[in-house]
Amino acid sequence: MTLRLYGYWRSSASWRVRIALHLKGVPFDTVPVHLVRDGGEHKQEAHRARNPMGQVPVLEVEGEGPPLRLTQSMAILAWLDAVHPDPALWPADPLARARAIERAEIVNAGIQPLQNLSVLDAFERAGVDRTAWGREVIASGLDALEALCPGVAGTFMVGHAPSIADVCLVPQLYNARRFGVDLDSVPTLRRIEAACEALPGFAAAHPDLQPDAV
Amino acid sequence: MTLRLYGYWRSSASWRVRIALHLKGVPFDTVPVHLVRDGGEHKQEAHRARNPMGQVPVLEVEGEGPPLRLTQSMAILAWLDAVHPDPALWPADPLARARAIERAEIVNAGIQPLQNLSVLDAFERAGVDRTAWGREVIASGLDALEALCPGVAGTFMVGHAPSIADVCLVPQLYNARRFGVDLDSVPTLRRIEAACEALPGFAAAHPDLQPDAV
Repeated sequence: MTLRLYGYWRSSASWRVRIALHLKGVPFDTVPVHLVRDGGEHKQEAHRARNPMGQVPVLEVEGEGPPLRLTQSMAILAWLDAVHPDPALWPADPLARARAIERAEIVNAGIQPLQNLSVLDAFERAGVDRTAWGREVIASGLDALEALCPGVAGTFMVGHAPSIADVCLVPQLYNARRFGVDLDSVPTLRRIEAACEALPGFAAAHPDLQPDAV
Repeated sequence: MTLRLYGYWRSSASWRVRIALHLKGVPFDTVPVHLVRDGGEHKQEAHRARNPMGQVPVLEVEGEGPPLRLTQSMAILAWLDAVHPDPALWPADPLARARAIERAEIVNAGIQPLQNLSVLDAFERAGVDRTAWGREVIASGLDALEALCPGVAGTFMVGHAPSIADVCLVPQLYNARRFGVDLDSVPTLRRIEAACEALPGFAAAHPDLQPDAV
């Protein structure tokens, strides 16, 4: 089985998938899709044929039968967790599992879509400071995540094993810094980020180490 | 065990949770949180104590031990599916499951956050036509969902049983009509919507039937 990840070094959703692949020790090929060059390769026909949403990441799986394509990082992560269950990124206990999904979705649906390039570009066209908007939505989302930590967070976002919550957190904190968000108010998140980065799987997935990094 | 759903009749994420509760036959109390009145009850302290993101839905569970609160519709749905597994809204087969999550997330992370009140209000403040923006993001997302139907959709979005993909689809189509999206280009989605609405669980969850509907 060959796995091909269409992504972009700085795309936080692509980064999430890389973390899971590295944590699980699953080999994969990287196919860069440049989100800025030529008006955005993700908007072009070749990529829309892979993903009608025109977004990254896309995971392509070649094995027996016709090649399989999956989009949406949460769906790709769930499929990887089913096919390569070790280590599991969805906790087994129903409540811990819900807690992990809740935290992952605060990033995946609550923060990231609002600071995505398409929204920032639309605000810029309207004369709104794109960075100020991004900073505001990231800061308020991270503050909510921090508020949910007591009683649930351990070494990681939910207890003492990394989960999808951590997979989503780390790239979002990187984005926070790019937007100039003050992270003094989220000490637990920063402590968990450091614990994640100490794991080789998280470290190997960092944008700066990707073949398309500039 | 008492379940209390803090939501708003027209909130599509609250609606998703109602569908699951009704499909599974789980009794629950509705606590309306008005998203427009008084500048938005969801932004007030009383609701932020339930959900630091200041959003609906929130599911509160009272039973033995301290009351449990869950936010983010995908997390609430996952918890309900674990505790009340019949009917299952996550397909058992890993690929079908990933397909259902993929479609649910196109709505949950790809469309809905971009047409949420907070973004629309920000565009309006910037002098951008909020309805035109909402129409555009909903239309392009639904077109992508339609493009993913061949070979996967059956009576429902993934095969012949309703899943989280359908739970997310139906409220998004309602929003599409509110924004004036032309749905001629998504015949499969409309056909699936009709199949969903024929199920009593989906029908009972409709906004117009909620106690806070006006």
